[in-house]
Amino acid sequence: MNIITISREFGSGGREIGKRIADTLGYSYYDREIITAIAGKHNFDENYVESMLENGFSFCMPITYGRTFSYTDVSGQQAIQLLSTQCRLLKELAEKDNCVIVGRSANIILEDYNPLNIFVYADMESKMNRCRERAPEEENLRESELRRKIKQIDSNRAKHQRFLSDKKWGDKEGYHLCVNTSGADIKAISSIIAEYAKGYFEKR
Amino acid sequence: MNIITISREFGSGGREIGKRIADTLGYSYYDREIITAIAGKHNFDENYVESMLENGFSFCMPITYGRTFSYTDVSGQQAIQLLSTQCRLLKELAEKDNCVIVGRSANIILEDYNPLNIFVYADMESKMNRCRERAPEEENLRESELRRKIKQIDSNRAKHQRFLSDKKWGDKEGYHLCVNTSGADIKAISSIIAEYAKGYFEKR
Repeated sequence: MNIITISREFGSGGREIGKRIADTLGYSYYDREIITAIAGKHNFDENYVESMLENGFSFCMPITYGRTFSYTDVSGQQAIQLLSTQCRLLKELAEKDNCVIVGRSANIILEDYNPLNIFVYADMESKMNRCRERAPEEENLRESELRRKIKQIDSNRAKHQRFLSDKKWGDKEGYHLCVNTSGADIKAISSIIAEYAKGYFEKR
Repeated sequence: MNIITISREFGSGGREIGKRIADTLGYSYYDREIITAIAGKHNFDENYVESMLENGFSFCMPITYGRTFSYTDVSGQQAIQLLSTQCRLLKELAEKDNCVIVGRSANIILEDYNPLNIFVYADMESKMNRCRERAPEEENLRESELRRKIKQIDSNRAKHQRFLSDKKWGDKEGYHLCVNTSGADIKAISSIIAEYAKGYFEKR
């Protein structure tokens, strides 16, 4: 199967790029659907699943008390269970058909399936503009608040990857292609990347 | 004019990619020619010019003696003169026709000409293999020596860029596209990047 994973900075347009690439190439597209499926399997609320998968791993880290250390086990174990479901689901998807998967650490989890791993990024100004265009509720955030929000989300993504892999989130060494969308037209850049992906799979 | 700059890690295949992109798109290609032209203008040996442009800027850094500081001026001034010729030449080329320029800090020097800046990189194993294939004299280097050589050359490139810009050499933020050639077929990847570049200039 041809698998494309898109990792992205918040506000860089990575999700839209992923959707457009999937449409252009006729691939399946997975993003939020994965959270919905995990939530369904565990009978949990989607937002809870998302938050646990993004932040829950802090509970798995050993906490030192004097000379002993322990784990805050309930939340930590739950996060691990959800992650384990996520891994299983991603592998099922990867075996089903050609697909584009946005986020969800698919670049790490599906390593053995030889995906084309793309990282999408942009400068802070472009990301703030894109956030404001796409989510009118963010218009009310002060510049400093929006900036902090963007940094916080990316910092969570980086932390999550640290839990799964030695490869640092966003370090170009972990991806085949890194694309800067600052000032770029997302529609145009998506069709160029789709061409790139097509060539990549044809020629490998 | 459409200008493509290729910055690259030593041994990553960036030079070959640059040449192939230029051939595919019918663009001019500049790399070593720039050194030759600078050497000609100053009536210097090419190797001397290359070495001065790569290492000579250490002489321009202020050296502190007690509470005063001074410059080792002869070599430092010469390096600046050569760099100034390099800037002039690059700008002349950028105004002449569509081109691909490999190295020579063209991504920084030609910033005002809105080039498409590409960074080519690979993991150490791929770079060492490529070095051995392309330069049989390097077969005699021990693994640790070749590794050290590759790191040293890249470290000089990074140092040189620090002299010219706040942007850190190799940091993805300074490029439009970063391409990992580890295990990739250079010929295939070049034609894909050429397509990307074509799309980029058509759609911008």
